[in-house]
Amino acid sequence: MIAVDHLAVVGVGLIGGSFAKALRAAGKVGRITGIGRSEANLLEAKRLGIIDHYAMDLVAVAGADLIMVAVPMGAYGQVFSALELHARADAIITDAGSTKQHAIRMAEQFLTAPGRFVPAHPIAGAEHSGAAAASVDLFVDRLVVITPTPKSESQLVGRVTDLWQTIGANVVEMDAKQHDQFLAAVSHLPHLAAFALVNAVAAQGDGAHDPFGFAAGGFRDFTRIASSSPVMWRDIALTNREALLASIDAMAGQLAQLRGAIAQGDGALLLEHFTKAKAARDGWLARSEGGMIGG
Amino acid sequence: MIAVDHLAVVGVGLIGGSFAKALRAAGKVGRITGIGRSEANLLEAKRLGIIDHYAMDLVAVAGADLIMVAVPMGAYGQVFSALELHARADAIITDAGSTKQHAIRMAEQFLTAPGRFVPAHPIAGAEHSGAAAASVDLFVDRLVVITPTPKSESQLVGRVTDLWQTIGANVVEMDAKQHDQFLAAVSHLPHLAAFALVNAVAAQGDGAHDPFGFAAGGFRDFTRIASSSPVMWRDIALTNREALLASIDAMAGQLAQLRGAIAQGDGALLLEHFTKAKAARDGWLARSEGGMIGG
Repeated sequence: MIAVDHLAVVGVGLIGGSFAKALRAAGKVGRITGIGRSEANLLEAKRLGIIDHYAMDLVAVAGADLIMVAVPMGAYGQVFSALELHARADAIITDAGSTKQHAIRMAEQFLTAPGRFVPAHPIAGAEHSGAAAASVDLFVDRLVVITPTPKSESQLVGRVTDLWQTIGANVVEMDAKQHDQFLAAVSHLPHLAAFALVNAVAAQGDGAHDPFGFAAGGFRDFTRIASSSPVMWRDIALTNREALLASIDAMAGQLAQLRGAIAQGDGALLLEHFTKAKAARDGWLARSEGGMIGG
Repeated sequence: MIAVDHLAVVGVGLIGGSFAKALRAAGKVGRITGIGRSEANLLEAKRLGIIDHYAMDLVAVAGADLIMVAVPMGAYGQVFSALELHARADAIITDAGSTKQHAIRMAEQFLTAPGRFVPAHPIAGAEHSGAAAASVDLFVDRLVVITPTPKSESQLVGRVTDLWQTIGANVVEMDAKQHDQFLAAVSHLPHLAAFALVNAVAAQGDGAHDPFGFAAGGFRDFTRIASSSPVMWRDIALTNREALLASIDAMAGQLAQLRGAIAQGDGALLLEHFTKAKAARDGWLARSEGGMIGG
């Protein structure tokens, strides 16, 4: 049964493309318009059957009854100001951005009816990018956090929730501020830490030896996320400032405790910290393998 | 051609067990004695044909012409004091420990002839442990760092180098202090950072939501090493104190710079840091895929 007559996807990358592809595969959507800045990517999306039409101007959202915003956080102001001009008054607007307070701020700043915006964040990896990486099952068993505000129209929240569930996601609702705090801790901070670590290692090169040459698999895994898009992470860092500063401070505090224990040769304290961390991570893995992740 | 008549492996875990298994497969060793504290592990090693005999007392090194010490760094004092008592005067002693200055300090403190000790560190992952995880090809194309001292007998350094090369490793020689500094940066610090990060995240739990539930694949990879052995990492941290403190300070400095840029909304500086880190990591990956890792 068609749930969306005309879907407009603003930003046909991994996330926006996979959303369109999965909804089409589920038979939930009529026609799909893709909007973006890279014509090559849009052509590829059309060739792959992810979208039916494309445009490089946001005026093309005009006919859509559902608009999915899947652009870097830094583009939200520009996109929402255009949506205010061009979107149908009864369109549902939703998004897939990583920082929800900023998304809501942009909606409230630019939209006459911010209650039609349903803020959402699918937590799915983004190792690859572009429409070519889009996958019909990217969101199966993945968590999608929806962060309604007091202004959000609950019927629209329900419709967006249904769509995500249709394509296999586990939807959880929570407060945008809490979402941003959790994501600062488990996603944004690790990215910053990986960037910081790689730069600290690079600074240690002495010309004669490549310090990276001494790295084993752990370092490769640990720093994989340092190969992420610098622009995307700049935007995330700047749009989740408060929560991220608190997370950085929390990690700096933990590092300082470990530093103190090492400086004082306090093996008991080190063992206590390491054991606690191992237990927390192993417990999380056991829970997530049991399918019990989420709120 | 037999290069070692009687090998004694002290600590028949992943590293010690793989060393024995690979040398046997290469036809380089006569008999192999395994020495350790866990009889169950030694029995398993014998059952798997990794060792011929086992003992739980270091007196069993007595007949060996090559002794491989593959125990946690915290056990070096005990092991080297026993080697001084029980090893043949003409035995070569080598090791596989992660912190080389400490290994050398222990050798010089306990051995009458510290020149017979060839300090070495195979850089191979240690996700799994115990003799059961030992593999004949663990060291193929992996880096082994040998850190001779001015006292080291060069002929013995050559013999240990030959053995590692026979089983497929790429051997590089360097100063123990520089080794410890590099490893502090690319291995010890990432482990500390992963432990610190997991503890910072765990501290954010509010009872209602599990913050780990919001983690995606990046977090899983980033924190995999936080599931490492707390005892092993306590020992490494305490035996590489000076280099590790400097590495922690370098990373704390990088984090503080990122913190400052975020607090001031300096997107250009963030982009510069992130771009530099991505380029460094991507460059390293490109080099290592081309087989050009190492000194």
